[in-house]
Amino acid sequence: MKKNAANFVALTPISFLHRSADIFPQREALIYEGMVVTWSELRDRCVSMASGLAEMGVESGDTVAVLAFNTPEMYESHFSIPMAGAILNTINTRLDASTVAYILDDGNAKVFIVDSELSGVAEDALKESKNQPQIVIINDPNVETKKSTKLEHVDYERVIADASTDFEWVRPEDEWSPLSLNYTSGTTGKPKGVVYHHRGSYLMSMGTVIGWQLPNHPTYLYTVPMFHCNGWGHAWTMAAVTGTVVCLRAFVPEKVFNIIEEYGVTHFGGAPIMLNMLSNAPDEIKKTFTRTVNVMTAGAPPPAKVLEKMMSMGFEIMHVYGLTETYGHILHAAPQSGWQTMTSDEQAQLRARQGVRFPITEDVSVIDQDTGELVPMDGETIGEIVIRGNTCMMGYLNNPTATEEAFSGGWFHSGDLAVVHGDGYIQIKDRLKDIIISGGENISSVEIENVLYKHPDVGEAAVVAMPDDLWGEVPCAFVELMPDSDTTEGQLIQFCKENMAKFKRPKRVVFGPLPKTATGKIQKHELRKMFS
Amino acid sequence: MKKNAANFVALTPISFLHRSADIFPQREALIYEGMVVTWSELRDRCVSMASGLAEMGVESGDTVAVLAFNTPEMYESHFSIPMAGAILNTINTRLDASTVAYILDDGNAKVFIVDSELSGVAEDALKESKNQPQIVIINDPNVETKKSTKLEHVDYERVIADASTDFEWVRPEDEWSPLSLNYTSGTTGKPKGVVYHHRGSYLMSMGTVIGWQLPNHPTYLYTVPMFHCNGWGHAWTMAAVTGTVVCLRAFVPEKVFNIIEEYGVTHFGGAPIMLNMLSNAPDEIKKTFTRTVNVMTAGAPPPAKVLEKMMSMGFEIMHVYGLTETYGHILHAAPQSGWQTMTSDEQAQLRARQGVRFPITEDVSVIDQDTGELVPMDGETIGEIVIRGNTCMMGYLNNPTATEEAFSGGWFHSGDLAVVHGDGYIQIKDRLKDIIISGGENISSVEIENVLYKHPDVGEAAVVAMPDDLWGEVPCAFVELMPDSDTTEGQLIQFCKENMAKFKRPKRVVFGPLPKTATGKIQKHELRKMFS
Repeated sequence: MKKNAANFVALTPISFLHRSADIFPQREALIYEGMVVTWSELRDRCVSMASGLAEMGVESGDTVAVLAFNTPEMYESHFSIPMAGAILNTINTRLDASTVAYILDDGNAKVFIVDSELSGVAEDALKESKNQPQIVIINDPNVETKKSTKLEHVDYERVIADASTDFEWVRPEDEWSPLSLNYTSGTTGKPKGVVYHHRGSYLMSMGTVIGWQLPNHPTYLYTVPMFHCNGWGHAWTMAAVTGTVVCLRAFVPEKVFNIIEEYGVTHFGGAPIMLNMLSNAPDEIKKTFTRTVNVMTAGAPPPAKVLEKMMSMGFEIMHVYGLTETYGHILHAAPQSGWQTMTSDEQAQLRARQGVRFPITEDVSVIDQDTGELVPMDGETIGEIVIRGNTCMMGYLNNPTATEEAFSGGWFHSGDLAVVHGDGYIQIKDRLKDIIISGGENISSVEIENVLYKHPDVGEAAVVAMPDDLWGEVPCAFVELMPDSDTTEGQLIQFCKENMAKFKRPKRVVFGPLPKTATGKIQKHELRKMFS
Repeated sequence: MKKNAANFVALTPISFLHRSADIFPQREALIYEGMVVTWSELRDRCVSMASGLAEMGVESGDTVAVLAFNTPEMYESHFSIPMAGAILNTINTRLDASTVAYILDDGNAKVFIVDSELSGVAEDALKESKNQPQIVIINDPNVETKKSTKLEHVDYERVIADASTDFEWVRPEDEWSPLSLNYTSGTTGKPKGVVYHHRGSYLMSMGTVIGWQLPNHPTYLYTVPMFHCNGWGHAWTMAAVTGTVVCLRAFVPEKVFNIIEEYGVTHFGGAPIMLNMLSNAPDEIKKTFTRTVNVMTAGAPPPAKVLEKMMSMGFEIMHVYGLTETYGHILHAAPQSGWQTMTSDEQAQLRARQGVRFPITEDVSVIDQDTGELVPMDGETIGEIVIRGNTCMMGYLNNPTATEEAFSGGWFHSGDLAVVHGDGYIQIKDRLKDIIISGGENISSVEIENVLYKHPDVGEAAVVAMPDDLWGEVPCAFVELMPDSDTTEGQLIQFCKENMAKFKRPKRVVFGPLPKTATGKIQKHELRKMFS
């Protein structure tokens, strides 16, 4: 019995687009600033774009880079570029020109699709990069002050309009071949190019439907930047369930509240910072909902206080955990039936844990870093989170050494330190480099941050190690206070002393805005620079 | 970039059991006659059974046959047998001894698990078969009159009790390797052994979650015999969503109504005959539900009247289509938003169509049998349903000729004749061999049956071709009337004349009970024998 054309088909998330377009052609696929694209129209546009890319010389295995916001063009790129047989390389919109240049060289993009608002950084990047891709410019008609660019380019809509429409899309022969290329944030050293394959993203979509209990036809607000793990893979997941995707150029709380109301948004995702912005929004723009709005949050452990606030506003929060290298979420704080009878504070504590594996994740364990043995499920013993499954990257592009290191011992190594609780739920205690070793004792910076978040005047907090002559390291807290509050350093240290083991309290508190990545992660390495 | 232990894992539905047992150990997995098995206990039992099978000499690639009802042991076999590395071969409980003997020989079972109530047919089969597998007997304590057997055997519970529990389950190295073996009903000639692989059943489960919009933790009543396409693959699907499976030894309408009420059943499946039995049940046992009970129906096009009745009782019916060769359902009458405003009769007509492809089905087309070209979407032109996807069988066991024929031209050929409507929904007109060719005109037996079902006195109906000197063939209807009705042959023919093109009317109506397969399909070949 052999594989043949009828009984074996390479898995690819592009299949989902075709099914949605075939079966629900008139359903709304994209909504953006009042404009609607149906699933049938979306496929037509993607086929045309794929055709246009092919006419520009893009061939199977080539890279096409995209520097854009969460507009329809960005969503389309998740289908059109692979349909041309090429690899989608979305680039973080907040990067500096040098890093963009590095990515264009490392990824060797043949075509570079750029939102006109970002043409400045693109121009600067292209001055630095050896690689000189062809440029396609997205001219969003909703941007009031248009930027013109000196770059030789073709307009995105022109590529679509001029392309022949009878293009035959390229189905991958091997499902374990590259689909997309996502660069890590590169907090240390050069960013690394993480390569996803078709099989993984297909399975990621399937697993997300079960793990997040997605119904058919959700209305999904795209708040997570699609340049981050392909927007947690939801770009393809929404095609699997024929959802309606509401595009969003920038995260503005007032606008988000209005869109949720106007379009009946059922699902969205966002880093805890976004939830923070919503829950701390002024009352005049804040909205609460009687129906449930489902929110997936990831990128940092959400403070229990934020979870509680959001839940009281009608949001059902699913906390998930993952990395760029794992296509996004591979753990989730799956609710247990027993949780319903707990107080909202207790529930928030449980939901703030990273949790248990997604249906497509084969194994997530916490291992002792010296012995490689599983740590006991005692909620105390710290080890490294390691992962096995079909949503682990193929490897880092052009970097066999880093790839080998990441996969040592038959596991993907996350670099996150965690404990396993008695119920099997994993909870992160720190990044490997974020643990504070003070007088021989390990202090979890996350634990201190969680205490700080309980203080009513604390808006955001980050704790890092500060060198200390006596103890080696001691915790230093960086805090952004709520508007108009006047809490002092002494008061916050006292508050910590009362709420944790005394030796763990921060020895210093620095007030001010916190440096963040594009995805809302606080950049602790920037804070650490104060002490180096 | 290469595959390694961390980034590539062979897909198998056995993974779902481990995830459910790890994450929801205390949730109810199985309920049967008041007995409850949790997901943790279920895994323990399956590991022990796998261990026991290995101790009996079962090795990777061996076959283990099961002749049993939908009891917990049958459900466990879907995991324990593959966990021993073996192939699960469930056998239709209504087969005669000779056919069972044929299957035991053809499948070469090493072990044969038999419900004691079926030990008679097993004994007779083993007298005929060359193959003499070891026997494991299921002694269901809920069966009042125990059958003893002369077969040398070991008790199912004894195997579990005696097995070592530290058995390491066999994960398939290749996901495209056999998981189960399901024999076709063999309406013509010998039954054929359809081989499923791990990859297909894994994907089938994922696709079912989307296609049927399964939430996490459904309560599923197992009315579909698990010997039929592994109970439409739902045995594994329920493990993917950590459902609770209520086992059922035999389909008795009163019991089904009571179980749905008592356990809060949310989902079940059944052939239209089962729906017929429920909707036509006497009022004193019938129950209606205010909550929605989701029913998947397949095996024959459900008469619109039955759909309507069930919907009025609180059942949400999803009509699906598939074959043993496609792991069960690959098409479904996915509801469109526009249907909501239609009359229940109109809705029932639309829902009675076989519909559109499941998410995991790559392509289902209707092609002209001569040219191989797609038929137009006109709702009129008849062609054969052909299928491509990862849930098409590996092939027929020991039958390369039939395998090659089934896969000719790069499609799996269903043998079903259908049209494609303007909205892309496929509707079966007939089995290839069920079409009636009368005076050069094709007459669909299904069309006549649908008209007959509209008559208030018709309980069940089947139409086949009857030889005719003048026309070649003419339709003959076999009808089972509702209790206490006295409609005559002449009245039914008149009713047909008034409701269809006159030439299509049956020329003869025969009253009496209809012969059926174990899954409720009317056996038209038995009816045809009247004319041969």
